[in-house]
Amino acid sequence: MRATMRFFSDNAAAVCPQVLDALAAANRVDTAYDGDEWSQQLDGAFSDLFGKQVRALWVTTGTAANCLGLAALCPPHGAILCNEMAHIEVDEAGAPGFFTHGAKLTLLPGYGGKVAAETVDEACGRVRDDVHQVQPAALSITNATEYGMSYSPDDVAALGEVAKRRGLGYHLDGARFANAVAFTGADPADLTWRAGVDVMSFGFVKNGGMNAEAVIFFDPAKAEVVPRLKKRAGHLLSKGRFLAAQILALLDDDLWLANARAANSAASALAEACADGRLIYPVEANELFVRMTGDEAAKLRTLGYDFYDWGPGEVRFVTSWDQDMEDVSQLAAALRAQ
Amino acid sequence: MRATMRFFSDNAAAVCPQVLDALAAANRVDTAYDGDEWSQQLDGAFSDLFGKQVRALWVTTGTAANCLGLAALCPPHGAILCNEMAHIEVDEAGAPGFFTHGAKLTLLPGYGGKVAAETVDEACGRVRDDVHQVQPAALSITNATEYGMSYSPDDVAALGEVAKRRGLGYHLDGARFANAVAFTGADPADLTWRAGVDVMSFGFVKNGGMNAEAVIFFDPAKAEVVPRLKKRAGHLLSKGRFLAAQILALLDDDLWLANARAANSAASALAEACADGRLIYPVEANELFVRMTGDEAAKLRTLGYDFYDWGPGEVRFVTSWDQDMEDVSQLAAALRAQ
Amino acid sequence: MRATMRFFSDNAAAVCPQVLDALAAANRVDTAYDGDEWSQQLDGAFSDLFGKQVRALWVTTGTAANCLGLAALCPPHGAILCNEMAHIEVDEAGAPGFFTHGAKLTLLPGYGGKVAAETVDEACGRVRDDVHQVQPAALSITNATEYGMSYSPDDVAALGEVAKRRGLGYHLDGARFANAVAFTGADPADLTWRAGVDVMSFGFVKNGGMNAEAVIFFDPAKAEVVPRLKKRAGHLLSKGRFLAAQILALLDDDLWLANARAANSAASALAEACADGRLIYPVEANELFVRMTGDEAAKLRTLGYDFYDWGPGEVRFVTSWDQDMEDVSQLAAALRAQ
Amino acid sequence: MRATMRFFSDNAAAVCPQVLDALAAANRVDTAYDGDEWSQQLDGAFSDLFGKQVRALWVTTGTAANCLGLAALCPPHGAILCNEMAHIEVDEAGAPGFFTHGAKLTLLPGYGGKVAAETVDEACGRVRDDVHQVQPAALSITNATEYGMSYSPDDVAALGEVAKRRGLGYHLDGARFANAVAFTGADPADLTWRAGVDVMSFGFVKNGGMNAEAVIFFDPAKAEVVPRLKKRAGHLLSKGRFLAAQILALLDDDLWLANARAANSAASALAEACADGRLIYPVEANELFVRMTGDEAAKLRTLGYDFYDWGPGEVRFVTSWDQDMEDVSQLAAALRAQ
Repeated sequence: MRATMRFFSDNAAAVCPQVLDALAAANRVDTAYDGDEWSQQLDGAFSDLFGKQVRALWVTTGTAANCLGLAALCPPHGAILCNEMAHIEVDEAGAPGFFTHGAKLTLLPGYGGKVAAETVDEACGRVRDDVHQVQPAALSITNATEYGMSYSPDDVAALGEVAKRRGLGYHLDGARFANAVAFTGADPADLTWRAGVDVMSFGFVKNGGMNAEAVIFFDPAKAEVVPRLKKRAGHLLSKGRFLAAQILALLDDDLWLANARAANSAASALAEACADGRLIYPVEANELFVRMTGDEAAKLRTLGYDFYDWGPGEVRFVTSWDQDMEDVSQLAAALRAQ
Repeated sequence: MRATMRFFSDNAAAVCPQVLDALAAANRVDTAYDGDEWSQQLDGAFSDLFGKQVRALWVTTGTAANCLGLAALCPPHGAILCNEMAHIEVDEAGAPGFFTHGAKLTLLPGYGGKVAAETVDEACGRVRDDVHQVQPAALSITNATEYGMSYSPDDVAALGEVAKRRGLGYHLDGARFANAVAFTGADPADLTWRAGVDVMSFGFVKNGGMNAEAVIFFDPAKAEVVPRLKKRAGHLLSKGRFLAAQILALLDDDLWLANARAANSAASALAEACADGRLIYPVEANELFVRMTGDEAAKLRTLGYDFYDWGPGEVRFVTSWDQDMEDVSQLAAALRAQ
Repeated sequence: MRATMRFFSDNAAAVCPQVLDALAAANRVDTAYDGDEWSQQLDGAFSDLFGKQVRALWVTTGTAANCLGLAALCPPHGAILCNEMAHIEVDEAGAPGFFTHGAKLTLLPGYGGKVAAETVDEACGRVRDDVHQVQPAALSITNATEYGMSYSPDDVAALGEVAKRRGLGYHLDGARFANAVAFTGADPADLTWRAGVDVMSFGFVKNGGMNAEAVIFFDPAKAEVVPRLKKRAGHLLSKGRFLAAQILALLDDDLWLANARAANSAASALAEACADGRLIYPVEANELFVRMTGDEAAKLRTLGYDFYDWGPGEVRFVTSWDQDMEDVSQLAAALRAQ
Repeated sequence: MRATMRFFSDNAAAVCPQVLDALAAANRVDTAYDGDEWSQQLDGAFSDLFGKQVRALWVTTGTAANCLGLAALCPPHGAILCNEMAHIEVDEAGAPGFFTHGAKLTLLPGYGGKVAAETVDEACGRVRDDVHQVQPAALSITNATEYGMSYSPDDVAALGEVAKRRGLGYHLDGARFANAVAFTGADPADLTWRAGVDVMSFGFVKNGGMNAEAVIFFDPAKAEVVPRLKKRAGHLLSKGRFLAAQILALLDDDLWLANARAANSAASALAEACADGRLIYPVEANELFVRMTGDEAAKLRTLGYDFYDWGPGEVRFVTSWDQDMEDVSQLAAALRAQ
């Protein structure tokens, strides 16, 4: 048995071989920054995927992807509405405040990291329309959420209706968008622009990539100043072809979707092994949040499993695109035995 | 003959094989962000190189490296003194203003992108010490400069003396530091901390790397908040081991220096081929700025050479670590024939 | 009877005659900015009041006073803990985000706008000490609160203990500090620096001033860069003597305290007139939040009283330093009759 | 003779009696912030003055006025072109960088603080239109300049033509606009919007006011977000009527122009007294920059005159609206005697 069987984070997973191959293939002279042939294909590749002309930019982190998108939607004096557990609030070190020059995150409650349309609507309704109060300018959701739940196309559309009515830009943190598509089986267009989304982060690093993420603007006009913001934030790499090539490799032949399905399957197998009441949230992507005593967790760890202590009596398992299904079966058995 | 013989930019060059190998070798599960074994070796590797305990952080661009360093030295209400042709002024899209929250760049004249100690001293002397004027807080130099000139250890130390006396933090943009070391033959320590430098960007991407640069703090205490600034700017990659591995590969066995020597040699060979008065600046690194008529430049291009029109009657050639010496010889011959 | 009997806002009140006299007396040539004889007296006047050497700066708004204080305590990547109803969160248009370059407000619950020591402690305890999460850097309280409640010296000190233990700077929004001193009868020192407060806004405009507020640093070292921040924010007036003179006039012979006592007395008289269960919060300063039907409110307005609809079934009355006690008696009678 | 005869700064001058009277007249209850009857008259009063519908906001400093105007014209990633001696560059502590979130000032040469149309045009022409370089977004001029020179309507219009062609917003720092109008005799409209100016600061404090300046938007649409920026910067005073009242008093019956004429006359009288070659710049407003040895300056000071040492062998005299003409005559005599 391996020393550690990893269910700790999809950030820790390996890079898939097609990505490594693409890096090697891109290793010849080309134009610097994003003028190269790979970078130039991104708009087209994502436009094909979404069935709509989009503007796509590579960046190296989800934080940069989210914050460039948000900066395009929200002025310094505006507010971004999001779930109180959103990554942009909890785990980005205040990056939204940096990129937007001080815009505010207005935190909304919601089970499993989701926000409901009426919650957004009520939050907007509470703001006086005067210069003393920060006015809501954008809505940000995460799909799949930080707690492994997925929004359906209808969920996204209901929020889109409120966003439109309230004059909010609509941002989607899609660090695990692939897992949401895999879970819902929905058309990517129905989870995004057809439901009113203006800008999204499309995650690849947690899904087999090395260090390339994408920001997608469904209205290319909204992207107009973003290349300047990106450069100004130090995110315009001089050998950008090595980022674009990763993304193209993962888009090719829907590898991104196959990878996400693999990760989701592993999560489902584990979910089925959890006794009633163990799961804190339904498993709708590649994460499990499980009630477990300290003794139980310690015992699993002695068996070689690696996972995260989420809080008192709670642990998190994350499955990855390259999860060994043998490990999964054995962990499932161990969970069943608890 | 190849379609294009590239002397356009070291940013367009290929990645060296040792770096690609290092990426493959790092492709196994490890801790996310910068807790991995490669990232953990950076402080040690650079401390060995500089003969002093330093703090080293990977980032993906020279702009990010420069601006994180500057943000550690200069408050929002301070000024950074630099040559008027410095990359931070001319080619970073205002990134220093973004990372420092609005600090000012005070521009100084100086031949070939260098600044002289007395120029810095006089500029400081012109500022009234009151709240109406922005006070100088940092000095930034580039070695080798944007015009391919190198500071000697004495140059750097003379500036360091002024910086210390005037209470300025001292920053070095070392996007082409390797070329300066190769040209001067100096000990890296003598070009940096022994001459008073507090923080430097150590460039790898123009020198065989893919997308990893380093920021080095010679006083680790000055680096204390920088990991937070880095994360907040979206520059903490989740699979950071792939950046650290590149840097370690280039540091290993002084590959960085060998690469820079190769690039410098190519530049020297071209410099020797230029007639008297053609060279705008002495060639002390891997760049040549050459006086050339439009007709001459056009003719060179029909021969397959690729280079940059710098201004009216001026062109720039940049040589790279992997420059084909056959191309160099032929280009030298063509230059001689002008 | 007058057309309107004002209980709308202390911001709408008149300026007291001593302040107008002081303006006239300051109307002679003197040094510009804050080098004049009035401005130079501020440190001394407040040091006398607080029994400790302090540094005091005039500004023109409570928002500027609060935000300069907060900017001195909290870095751009830090968080400021405050009640969810705090003025800095609700009514300053995001100014804390502007002055701190994007620091975050972490919102805490608490009755009547107060925060409890354990609430602050728990909030700090929930933050992981890593670079992904914004670290708490400051605590801000308002005394008297936006809901007219006052912290006692013990309350302030209990929070001060937590602030110190958690490494938080401690800020006090004292827009109505005078009313809190008048209500508690406490020594100003016991409500501030003896209880651990680092910086406070000392409000004068709601209490008889025209357009002068003060920021007080109990540790003068913490104020060191603040004059630069103030100038950089456009808050260094060229004829600053007209601000300092207002403050000195209100400090003279404890006019500030007499004014606050007058306002508080008017509020108390109204509070006594409210039937059981009408008052939403205890009246501990110069504001009353009263449950009242729309019909009741409308009827009061036909009698000529002017006040604020706070929310469904809730109204707010604010009394001022110059409240006509005849008006107060008649309004009290009208409230009793409800 | 008085102990000191002041020619130091118009910032140190007294407030004119009409302004003090207006403060007293405004001292009754009214709506807070800028909803009061005085504030509500500003748009109309300035629209009458300029013969065009404008949007006018009061603020308390020229720095705030300039920076709110600039923030409305220039994005964080843009550049503002101005003379290298402009107040926004030299004497505002970096405030433009603060209000614009890091926009850059591009400094242009020009005699006496003026900039020429061709200088602006050439500076724009030097910028590459790519994401690496900060793009010019605004032009800022000062009239009268910091060196006491005035632009004519033709000067302003020539710059306006370049601004329009280059897509620049056009800002006018009018801290001493009154002096420029008085000197040129031009219609205020011809010095501003008819010549293409978008936004101006209209100074009152140096011209008899106490602490009120105005920002004027000639296209009210450009002012749309400015009230939010103003509040967010802590510049929305709660008793705003005391600022608006000052401005209305100075606009009334063209008192602003009479005051400026008085100041200019005093300066002219001194200018005539200066021997050939003494004046560094022509005197076209209320400032004189005079070549003078240290001995000469010392002697003048022993006579009781107060002025500023501008640099080695240079002094500055500034005249004010309330300059005693007897003092002026005596100083003129003393200058003649040098």
